[in-house]
Amino acid sequence: MRVLSSLEKLRLTFQPRLPSMLQALERLIPLFEPGGIAQGPLDHRIAHRFPQTINQTPVSFVTGDAKTHKALRVGVVFSGGQAAGGHNIISGLYDALMKLNPESKLYGFLNGPNGIINNQAKEIDAEILKNYRNLGGFDLLGSGRTKIETSEQFQAALKTVHGLHLDGLVIVGGDDSNTNAALLAEYFLLKNCQTRVIGTPKTIDGDLKNASIEVSFGFDTACKTFSQTIGSILTDSLSAKKYYYFIKLMGRSASHITLECALKCHPNLALIGEEIAAKNLSLKAIIQSIADLICARAEKKKNYGVILIPEGLVEFIPEIKFLIQELNALLASAKPHLKELDSLPKKEKIRYVAEWLTPPSKECFLFLTEEIQLQLLMERDPHGNVQVAKIETERLLIDLVKAELAIRKKDGAYTGGFSAQPLFCGYEGRSCLPSNFDCQYCYALGHVAVLLIHTKLTGYMSCISDLHLPVEHWGIQGIPLTQMMGMEERNGELKSVVLKALVDLTGKPFTFFAQERKKWETEDMYCDPGPIQFFGPLAETDQIPLTLYHESSKNLLIV
Amino acid sequence: MRVLSSLEKLRLTFQPRLPSMLQALERLIPLFEPGGIAQGPLDHRIAHRFPQTINQTPVSFVTGDAKTHKALRVGVVFSGGQAAGGHNIISGLYDALMKLNPESKLYGFLNGPNGIINNQAKEIDAEILKNYRNLGGFDLLGSGRTKIETSEQFQAALKTVHGLHLDGLVIVGGDDSNTNAALLAEYFLLKNCQTRVIGTPKTIDGDLKNASIEVSFGFDTACKTFSQTIGSILTDSLSAKKYYYFIKLMGRSASHITLECALKCHPNLALIGEEIAAKNLSLKAIIQSIADLICARAEKKKNYGVILIPEGLVEFIPEIKFLIQELNALLASAKPHLKELDSLPKKEKIRYVAEWLTPPSKECFLFLTEEIQLQLLMERDPHGNVQVAKIETERLLIDLVKAELAIRKKDGAYTGGFSAQPLFCGYEGRSCLPSNFDCQYCYALGHVAVLLIHTKLTGYMSCISDLHLPVEHWGIQGIPLTQMMGMEERNGELKSVVLKALVDLTGKPFTFFAQERKKWETEDMYCDPGPIQFFGPLAETDQIPLTLYHESSKNLLIV
Repeated sequence: MRVLSSLEKLRLTFQPRLPSMLQALERLIPLFEPGGIAQGPLDHRIAHRFPQTINQTPVSFVTGDAKTHKALRVGVVFSGGQAAGGHNIISGLYDALMKLNPESKLYGFLNGPNGIINNQAKEIDAEILKNYRNLGGFDLLGSGRTKIETSEQFQAALKTVHGLHLDGLVIVGGDDSNTNAALLAEYFLLKNCQTRVIGTPKTIDGDLKNASIEVSFGFDTACKTFSQTIGSILTDSLSAKKYYYFIKLMGRSASHITLECALKCHPNLALIGEEIAAKNLSLKAIIQSIADLICARAEKKKNYGVILIPEGLVEFIPEIKFLIQELNALLASAKPHLKELDSLPKKEKIRYVAEWLTPPSKECFLFLTEEIQLQLLMERDPHGNVQVAKIETERLLIDLVKAELAIRKKDGAYTGGFSAQPLFCGYEGRSCLPSNFDCQYCYALGHVAVLLIHTKLTGYMSCISDLHLPVEHWGIQGIPLTQMMGMEERNGELKSVVLKALVDLTGKPFTFFAQERKKWETEDMYCDPGPIQFFGPLAETDQIPLTLYHESSKNLLIV
Repeated sequence: MRVLSSLEKLRLTFQPRLPSMLQALERLIPLFEPGGIAQGPLDHRIAHRFPQTINQTPVSFVTGDAKTHKALRVGVVFSGGQAAGGHNIISGLYDALMKLNPESKLYGFLNGPNGIINNQAKEIDAEILKNYRNLGGFDLLGSGRTKIETSEQFQAALKTVHGLHLDGLVIVGGDDSNTNAALLAEYFLLKNCQTRVIGTPKTIDGDLKNASIEVSFGFDTACKTFSQTIGSILTDSLSAKKYYYFIKLMGRSASHITLECALKCHPNLALIGEEIAAKNLSLKAIIQSIADLICARAEKKKNYGVILIPEGLVEFIPEIKFLIQELNALLASAKPHLKELDSLPKKEKIRYVAEWLTPPSKECFLFLTEEIQLQLLMERDPHGNVQVAKIETERLLIDLVKAELAIRKKDGAYTGGFSAQPLFCGYEGRSCLPSNFDCQYCYALGHVAVLLIHTKLTGYMSCISDLHLPVEHWGIQGIPLTQMMGMEERNGELKSVVLKALVDLTGKPFTFFAQERKKWETEDMYCDPGPIQFFGPLAETDQIPLTLYHESSKNLLIV
């Protein structure tokens, strides 16, 4: 059992503000918008896979007359990696349920979707919640990465929700978990089960994002936490004038976190994976451009600086992407002798694998450092795929830049010093105390999820709009999950999935960044946002993500 | 030029509270305590090296009549690694100087002691300070690690302080820099120079500590920043129930930071270097005890947890300490063929070096992972010594524990899973926004430094006592640096140095930790202190270090 810190105890008493609409929750009546806001022309293959839920339309709400409501029974589950605000989804659900009818019940499934399959749930009441409101982590329930995939698992899930007589099941998850929510909704309908399935947009990575999801919850807190570290490192770099810090930022493929942190902190360089792919930049070209930056700064007697690297960088470098695909295919094919790969000494292993690669991949593979070559060969997931997240890109770049600078030094083109420190911002940004933004966002998402269940809708995502406005002006809606889906290849099979968003290189946040960054390179316009504050002026405590600020056409911060 | 964040702008307006004594600064008169509080029987070798300053006694202050004071000219320099609060030493100096006489002048030397040697200084006025009050980093002046050692350097320093007509020179530094301050004070007196040299106790490591220095500045902020990360990781660990996090904490040799963070966060295990040395524990024994912990937790179905590792750990493990000494001697001796070591392939290099070691060191060396073996051979400082701070102890322990668990698994003694993540908390704790404690402590230290210069004292440390009491009750004093000194071997030579303190295994903080930790092992009594707060209740914003709290016999927190 966790021991609450003094700050956590103070946070328990924080009352999240609510969108005005939700303040009279019990009077809201649904308003369906035919046509809605599908993400593009609806794919017939998705229609084919979701016959029950494909024709649903977005729903918003208007205030009607007060009336009484029947008690609801709702289950909730955390699925996948932690994101700050999860506990407030639960307190939002609970408070909304109690507002509609105090006889309502809320059940939390333990340790992720496994808790649904194995029917492990605990009832959540006011007493339990008292110790989790506005706190970080998913520890009230635990989480897990199991997916409900096999027909046995679907049947078990059905049995569980039947057994508990659930009116609704709320899935707190990212893109994969929401794909699962859509499948479960479809399956329950098919089986005449009355349990409605509702998704909520969770992920620190910020890639669960579309016309209806302005930002996923957890993104704000993670970026603020990472930016605290980056800001402090920037000041350190400027004070000691001694090190180049190469900071890798968690966030899977997309570079949303890196972009947000760059906007907040103004590092000398922030690599954006999507831009590298669009410009078809090779690893060598990236190393050249970093070395150019270091040389330009050295001319100004600045042998220090900070470079941000998105976790998914290597996936966006064309030749490495190709190399990884080739390695995955090669090692899965179990070529003769390759089975004994693990028993070979390191050097031979590398030489041996290189021989099986196509010439461009071989060249790319041999350009990498031995450390990374071995990581590519050894760190593989259960499907045999390279675990890109485990590749220590920050160290790879340092080693390659060092080698490039040594060449330039020999040529006399560069006379500076280069001492580098690798850093990784990751796990500490997932379970920390949620910012006011995430506390309030999640609290509202929980309320909307209850509204959708109460409206007997299934296969919907709980959505909040106008997040750039003060909380009271936020809009609320439900969007069919099928409208967020597209077809994608997964493990060689075409699947209908909730789509992820990469950084939009034509969007306002990136455009603004691209316009500002040149001066950040050699001028030290470092900004240190400091730690998240929970007390003090609203303009400090209730800041929204800068990417969200730039995206909102009205550009309103806190009124 | 840095861009100030909204929080930094708010912090600029924070007014540090002052000890009551300092509120009537201009009326204070010195009171000398003969005998004083020397650290032990005074070493005649120190007396021999400091004939001018050895007989000085501690000084405190009492309130007298108001009178006018002549203007003072003071210089200040940052020496060594950053610690939060440095800018408040400067604002404390400036405000105290202005209070005594508004005609006074303050000069800041640029980029560390080099700025004194090269006479690079800038005048600090209210306008400049306005943008640095209560902010992190040392960027107002920059810092550096140069020491004033050669007679040319001493002469250059003398010339600089003469040229600027300085009444005083304030050194903001750790143990080495304060040793330097003592030497400079002695030298200036010898040369009939009227510039008084005053030290202030700076280091995040917390090892500049003695009967008169309750804690060094920067320690509080660094520990709070690291504990924010550790706390969040603890919650993450408990939520995902998936990883063992091995977190290495900056702090050089001593384990003060690890002890403080352990008291704040209650990890499952916190290794204390001093205890390992006292118990003469071998690396194998440490690995066994970590594996025992993991097995005990696995029996409770807990395959996750958090382990804290002090940066200086390896120096305390007897056989590694011995191995490092042997390697230093061996590689410095330039044995035949050893010169070509760098050109050998890795495996051969290791094999070759191992042959030159004594049997116990050879065994120890070969027990290490290849990564660490190479770090020991390659990462060497300009003196050829192993750079202990660069040894990735967190990764070493993970690899060795993994191997040990594999053996136990084979024996059937252990059936759990072990997936580990290495983390390092370091550079981000040095330049962050200082806590209120460090802001106020440094502001007071600056005031006392001015008082000491005004009293025409030299070779003194600015000291604040009773730091566990509310700021208003803090005591102020000056202690001769020579009373903090002892003889130590440095690079094979016996030198008189300001002594560092290791964790006292008989002290109250460690005793309390030792008594509590057993239950932290398998019960998850995790505590997440969250980010430093600058607004809100005083009990939250003005927390003092827990080690300081436990040390103070009165055990008073905030009144």
